Amino acid sequence: MLKVEHIGIAVKDLTQSIPLFEKLLNTECYKTEAVNSEQVTTAFFRQGDTKIELLESTDSQGVIARFIEKKGEGIHHIAFEVADIEAEMKRLQAEGFVLLNETPKAGADNKLICFLHPKGTNSVLIELCMERHES
Amino acid sequence: MLKVEHIGIAVKDLTQSIPLFEKLLNTECYKTEAVNSEQVTTAFFRQGDTKIELLESTDSQGVIARFIEKKGEGIHHIAFEVADIEAEMKRLQAEGFVLLNETPKAGADNKLICFLHPKGTNSVLIELCMERHES
Repeated sequence: MLKVEHIGIAVKDLTQSIPLFEKLLNTECYKTEAVNSEQVTTAFFRQGDTKIELLESTDSQGVIARFIEKKGEGIHHIAFEVADIEAEMKRLQAEGFVLLNETPKAGADNKLICFLHPKGTNSVLIELCMERHES
Repeated sequence: MLKVEHIGIAVKDLTQSIPLFEKLLNTECYKTEAVNSEQVTTAFFRQGDTKIELLESTDSQGVIARFIEKKGEGIHHIAFEVADIEAEMKRLQAEGFVLLNETPKAGADNKLICFLHPKGTNSVLIELCMERHES
């Protein structure tokens, strides 16, 4: 793990939460991006070497909609940047952690990502992410 | 706000969670520290420019014990480093955010800290922190 790449926060309504977080963090939202495969629209803020990512569901049955229904708005996951996502997935599996996807998948912000099962991490949803290289 | 200084995670038992997070993050816990005023023992891990702070309650009625009783283990707060905590507290109050302490208080890791009320921040508990200067 190289660093905390971003912290994901589940919100109901980006039109309210983007200006709220702009005031809170005293910085502008520099990008919004739809990730259709994850049924979310994302909004990003820089904070030092890390980003804050707000997540609004685009589907009432999407993973973020169901998270909010169950737990309310709030912090959803921590994403760690890794140098080699496949090597890190293998290392963590060997340590007994359970991966939620067996191969890296496309995430927001031009990343390849993999989630770990929170049952093995004190209920913290952990994302691994790595910048996608053009092939 | 300068950067994400740390992410606080509520756990039941540091003796289990420290080795778990050492495996997960592939780095050693470099410090544990009791913060008696907050009724917690903390354990720190470096991740790039940010830290992961595990929090175990030392009192069954402490804030972390009550958090775990209500919501289970998991991410508890995000702490942002600020250059001037009193100025940042004033700025946020003027923007309509509610402070949980009116003056900065002592936190772990030689910091002065202040929490914001999560009702005003999409249910995210936000801590401001600033390195204490010797006077």
